[in-house]
Amino acid sequence: MSKSGPQIRIAIDAMGGDNAPFSIVAGTVMGYRVLESGVRLMLVGSANRIKQELINLKADNLPIEVIDAPETIDMSDSPIEAIKQKKNSSINIGLRLQKEGKADAFISAGNTGAVMASSLLTLGRLKGVSRPAIATLFPTVEGVALVLDVGANSDCKSHHLSQFGIMGAIYSKFILKVKNPKVGLLSIGEEQSKGNELTIASHKLLDSSAINFCGNVEGRDILKGTVDVVVCDGFVGNIILKFAESTGSFFSTMLKKKIRGNLFANIGALLMTAAFRSFKQSLDSAEYGGAPLLGINGVCIICHGSSSPKAIKNAILVSVDVVRKKVNKVIQEKITSNGFVAETTADQIDKLL
Amino acid sequence: MSKSGPQIRIAIDAMGGDNAPFSIVAGTVMGYRVLESGVRLMLVGSANRIKQELINLKADNLPIEVIDAPETIDMSDSPIEAIKQKKNSSINIGLRLQKEGKADAFISAGNTGAVMASSLLTLGRLKGVSRPAIATLFPTVEGVALVLDVGANSDCKSHHLSQFGIMGAIYSKFILKVKNPKVGLLSIGEEQSKGNELTIASHKLLDSSAINFCGNVEGRDILKGTVDVVVCDGFVGNIILKFAESTGSFFSTMLKKKIRGNLFANIGALLMTAAFRSFKQSLDSAEYGGAPLLGINGVCIICHGSSSPKAIKNAILVSVDVVRKKVNKVIQEKITSNGFVAETTADQIDKLL
Repeated sequence: MSKSGPQIRIAIDAMGGDNAPFSIVAGTVMGYRVLESGVRLMLVGSANRIKQELINLKADNLPIEVIDAPETIDMSDSPIEAIKQKKNSSINIGLRLQKEGKADAFISAGNTGAVMASSLLTLGRLKGVSRPAIATLFPTVEGVALVLDVGANSDCKSHHLSQFGIMGAIYSKFILKVKNPKVGLLSIGEEQSKGNELTIASHKLLDSSAINFCGNVEGRDILKGTVDVVVCDGFVGNIILKFAESTGSFFSTMLKKKIRGNLFANIGALLMTAAFRSFKQSLDSAEYGGAPLLGINGVCIICHGSSSPKAIKNAILVSVDVVRKKVNKVIQEKITSNGFVAETTADQIDKLL
Repeated sequence: MSKSGPQIRIAIDAMGGDNAPFSIVAGTVMGYRVLESGVRLMLVGSANRIKQELINLKADNLPIEVIDAPETIDMSDSPIEAIKQKKNSSINIGLRLQKEGKADAFISAGNTGAVMASSLLTLGRLKGVSRPAIATLFPTVEGVALVLDVGANSDCKSHHLSQFGIMGAIYSKFILKVKNPKVGLLSIGEEQSKGNELTIASHKLLDSSAINFCGNVEGRDILKGTVDVVVCDGFVGNIILKFAESTGSFFSTMLKKKIRGNLFANIGALLMTAAFRSFKQSLDSAEYGGAPLLGINGVCIICHGSSSPKAIKNAILVSVDVVRKKVNKVIQEKITSNGFVAETTADQIDKLL
């Protein structure tokens, strides 16, 4: 315990991501240097390799804790099997720290499916939440839009989408500092009657919930920044995310083909390429500090596999903010007070609906 | 009848689209000038207005037939109501010409929902086809990819998606001239087991059909040109299409913000803007001649509301090609020989599945 209030403890998976452990350790050191006191950082993974990276970074004297995890889940591992077989992986051990009350948040740039599955198994869901969702920030003309779910749930029911709207609105308000965030339901056509069976049913629930629901939005509205929070099922959200990630390199390639030989255009294209790369990076959450897994009984931030040290640093700052602002407490209160969960538990709801 | 084989008769909705009737009449005149003999063009709509446009274009002496349709369905009209209430709209009359054997194809840049609904009601489906689908071309690094469905069906079953794959492969082969077109199923994750309930079931059906099915593709594969035909339900397809259409103006805007004041970059950006515009236009099907509604018992090409005369001209050329190559006959043969429709009619299948 620090003297200025309860200490916040962040566990970081040192082994996840394309450039692990280097990027992760370097990002953690960057994070340490900008954080105020009262936050303790823990690197989870191969103790030897982490310590070596800390030495390389001349950071082995910093009070960053190293927690040994002898196993590593690879990006290509099957998530469910991996978390069951590699019980002492950095992902499992990192999340177990939260379960045991030894950490307040977990950050990983590792196998997304494994992080998600282990979070659910280890920490469970918040009371009243039926399905956790991954929320990712898209850059927009106006700033950013939080899109959820982008991959945790490939088949959803209307009450799931309605809860995504509530969780997204809370995250947008408390962490992204948007006053009264506008929430839109991703659909085809703006009218309430337009969409598929799922969105038409979800529209009604969202409309009756205590958030600033603005109705349906279309595919074109995401980048326009029409709303602050875009609600969709994880199948649609993941396809849009992957499509969006591919647009930068598509435009770069097409442009290069078009302007070969023209000096001005070539210089322009160079600058463009940088802009496209930054678009892709912003989708990769480098700037925004990862994608929170909202709805679990704990804090888990999922970072892109290609996360830079800066992305990890930002994820650490975001996770501290999420813990400090008690986002989960707010989510639980709003979800349970929004009518359709009331006194039943999430498990009972799953059976009921 | 011309002496060189049966005449092909194309009916064109002169009243549909943002710049109707001008763009449509001008596009029809352009089409007339490049078409070989044996094709007859018919403009359907307000006879007075069409004739005036032809006079303005100094084309009133051309053998383009004008068929009067006293009513017009607006872009904002509710599709089903409009086609029922405005029985003598250019859309209804244009499609009725096909029903009555007086035309072989219909082209419209008007209210997409109304064109689709009227096509289904007036012409019906091809034997064996459960659901018609709108197929749109996306530009890719490799050329183009045909994506279907992009909006005709917001809720699909696996046999619908499987039929979309067959119809798309046929269109790609006969009209886009792709040898043995590669067909992919839009999903999340490449493995067969990845996706939502719909795509997992569809994967099996597509795998057992007599097309070159290459398995799941992800959102990022569309613009990469990984496959020639991308199969998805109309909800996902429409969202991706609208999102893609918005990327050009998004990048333009962001880039302009970024490079203000830099001469080279400004020149680059100008060139980029042109490139972005051409990307948007190619999604609007200007270059490729509209989006066919595949699976109806007739030929119907849907053009973007903002279609230029060139887009209309190209749609006319494509429609002639579709009629000449008897694409519908091939679709019907392949669908009925692909096992799961056999001797049952589409209606029976809808009840069975």
